[in-house]
Amino acid sequence: MAKPKIEPRLPKGMRDFLPQQMIKREYVFNIVREVFHLYGFEPLQTPVLELHETLMGKYGEDAEKLIFNAQHPGGKEELALRYDLTVPLARVVAQYQNDITLPFKRYQLSPVWRAERPQRGRYREFYQCDADIVGVQSMSGDAEILSLIISVLTRLGFPQFMVKVNNRKLLTAIGQYAGADGEQLADLYRSIDKFDKIGANGVRGELVTRGVDAEVVTRIMDLVTARHPGLEQLDFLEDVMANLPIAQEAIRELRELAAHLDAAHIAPDKYEFDLTMVRGLGYYTGPIFETIITEPNLGSVTGGGRYDDLVGLFRGESLPTTGTSLGIERIIDLMDILNLYPAHIGGTVVQALVTVFGADTRAESTGLVAELRAAGVRSELFMLDRPIGKQINYADKKGIPVVALLGADEIAAGTVKLKRLADGQEVIVSRAAVPATIADLLR
Amino acid sequence: MAKPKIEPRLPKGMRDFLPQQMIKREYVFNIVREVFHLYGFEPLQTPVLELHETLMGKYGEDAEKLIFNAQHPGGKEELALRYDLTVPLARVVAQYQNDITLPFKRYQLSPVWRAERPQRGRYREFYQCDADIVGVQSMSGDAEILSLIISVLTRLGFPQFMVKVNNRKLLTAIGQYAGADGEQLADLYRSIDKFDKIGANGVRGELVTRGVDAEVVTRIMDLVTARHPGLEQLDFLEDVMANLPIAQEAIRELRELAAHLDAAHIAPDKYEFDLTMVRGLGYYTGPIFETIITEPNLGSVTGGGRYDDLVGLFRGESLPTTGTSLGIERIIDLMDILNLYPAHIGGTVVQALVTVFGADTRAESTGLVAELRAAGVRSELFMLDRPIGKQINYADKKGIPVVALLGADEIAAGTVKLKRLADGQEVIVSRAAVPATIADLLR
Repeated sequence: MAKPKIEPRLPKGMRDFLPQQMIKREYVFNIVREVFHLYGFEPLQTPVLELHETLMGKYGEDAEKLIFNAQHPGGKEELALRYDLTVPLARVVAQYQNDITLPFKRYQLSPVWRAERPQRGRYREFYQCDADIVGVQSMSGDAEILSLIISVLTRLGFPQFMVKVNNRKLLTAIGQYAGADGEQLADLYRSIDKFDKIGANGVRGELVTRGVDAEVVTRIMDLVTARHPGLEQLDFLEDVMANLPIAQEAIRELRELAAHLDAAHIAPDKYEFDLTMVRGLGYYTGPIFETIITEPNLGSVTGGGRYDDLVGLFRGESLPTTGTSLGIERIIDLMDILNLYPAHIGGTVVQALVTVFGADTRAESTGLVAELRAAGVRSELFMLDRPIGKQINYADKKGIPVVALLGADEIAAGTVKLKRLADGQEVIVSRAAVPATIADLLR
Repeated sequence: MAKPKIEPRLPKGMRDFLPQQMIKREYVFNIVREVFHLYGFEPLQTPVLELHETLMGKYGEDAEKLIFNAQHPGGKEELALRYDLTVPLARVVAQYQNDITLPFKRYQLSPVWRAERPQRGRYREFYQCDADIVGVQSMSGDAEILSLIISVLTRLGFPQFMVKVNNRKLLTAIGQYAGADGEQLADLYRSIDKFDKIGANGVRGELVTRGVDAEVVTRIMDLVTARHPGLEQLDFLEDVMANLPIAQEAIRELRELAAHLDAAHIAPDKYEFDLTMVRGLGYYTGPIFETIITEPNLGSVTGGGRYDDLVGLFRGESLPTTGTSLGIERIIDLMDILNLYPAHIGGTVVQALVTVFGADTRAESTGLVAELRAAGVRSELFMLDRPIGKQINYADKKGIPVVALLGADEIAAGTVKLKRLADGQEVIVSRAAVPATIADLLR
């Protein structure tokens, strides 16, 4: 074998998806799209390349170092590969004000690029899947997002998960309640955000180390770690922070959200109010959400919340917006870990391989495969010159469930022999009955 | 309205697809995928960013000026956005030799980037849709590709189209036959390639101007413009070029191709042998194909052919490969021009809007929309505080076909009023009958 001119390899952090993987990915993507459509979310697609100025100043300095720039020889525009799907949404909503009817419920399922240090489960090109509602101030929008998340995860087959709900305003209130301000408040959030990893004592220790007054730490920790079932959690917070208007507003919003969820037949055990769920500071302005796969605890698979100010960066005027991002790459990984793919999602799309005995029967086999396809059976004609045994091995290796055998005897008799590879079952049927028999064998 | 900080705009040659457009694009993409699966082609996905060295030296200097380069601050690799889907396929086949079973039938439906001067119908980011078979030397592979093209276009609803077939080897033979060599041969191809645009006399004139001997021009033009029905075209060529081995090989291949197509029940009027179809010189080594939408003549929608040497650039060893690229952006445009979208592919995915009479009935409406979604009806809850008339206007504007009205009377009676907006038909049904009645109204 001659030396190839170019070594075939990928850039750092990039992946190819061979058919076996793509079939699983497409299965997940299709269910997600189907549920999004059921909820009336409509597809949007923005280009991979945005103007550099569109992305800059939205994500913070550290994040912006991870943005890939793009250029062509002689090009005058400064371009960049999109970093997320939220900023492009804000741009679109501002740019097409006359074409977009509000409320605008859109989803986008597309890759984004971040030059992070590659590591297990983290790549430089990965898919994001966002659903957002632009133009709805009421909590019915946030309830719609939570219902959507619950439907998607249920339809994908996740048996145990919990949607955690908090409110950005409640975090502000807690700061006021505890007497923490400015820099302290930011530290406080950063520490609370680690609750899942370092536990209550870890957070406590960090806050004290950072110089937060011990009494303040106690007040905060008592508040954020309190666990009361369902709405009692809100009663508790309402009592404790009775004199803080922002707390009362936050709690009113969460009560309203719970009422909408109840009306939408969402069982109260699907979500919980959790003050330790922070989701960074970011651009959130109201309720925030995160979904955890529980039993086994496999971490977060969705994040989101209300961000009423982002669109205003492009539009002058703000528009209330709430939404969620599904961690679709993590979901795809967990589907494998939890064995959630149905049995028919295998290594191939092909349902039947039509074998070829020899040159003199090839035309009959070619005709049969055309008939199968016309009848809707996903089928492949074996196109190399190999003995039948090798052809069956090929089907077996690829995971094709049924093989059609069409020798001189079968052709003379107007029949076809079908073999199911999983159990070796064979059946000889008339040519007209082949598609229906394959359907039976696939059951 | 305050001045926005950043003007919302797109880079040159880039597009956003709003839902109304995306719904049509997805309709086309889904049919294409479905037919590809029927033929046993499996999805492959390669990353947008490739190493610069992977792309360079494959497309020619002029094309390579159009490649977008990419970089992140501090990045050490030279990256580029993919320019087509063929070079990534060749890389993948070489890179995963142990994971890929041959023959490898894959498709990829993905965007590519080219910094061409933007003009009507030409963009810098556009989708390509390629189906290729790697590892099949026999013409059954080429026949499979032609059958696939015919099935896709038929399923999309194109009423009149013609697959033009030529053979790269026949073009070499014509050069030999006419006594044209080297530079002359290249000129000859370039001129013949313009046959559709400038006609026989135009090509004749160009060749003479380029200094090709008048007698040679006559011999060439008599040959490439000869039109005999079906296989008689091959008989004619076989006679004329009887003493040229490469011509005889090319004709033998095309006869074999025709025999495979006949066995696959492809009608002979779906394709024709056309020696004026050249498809550039490029990397083709055998049969080449192009499909033209005829009556009205709307130009080419697919191109392809056999290219047995490309994989060898990465692999040392060549692998026989044949395939096609669907001009999917052009197909999407033509679907509109020829009105091929079915009536239900409208401006929205939503089938029913559930209206809200007021705060006291909102919970009932929220419950109804949850029930509709559980029954598989794609539905939207109206989430703004507006009079019913405005809510119906919203449905009308968005193209939502059915509106559900749920006032105090209906709630008391356990019924729902459904209104079909196209003709104003109204019906009042029990709540349990709502999903089935909507299905009826949508028919």
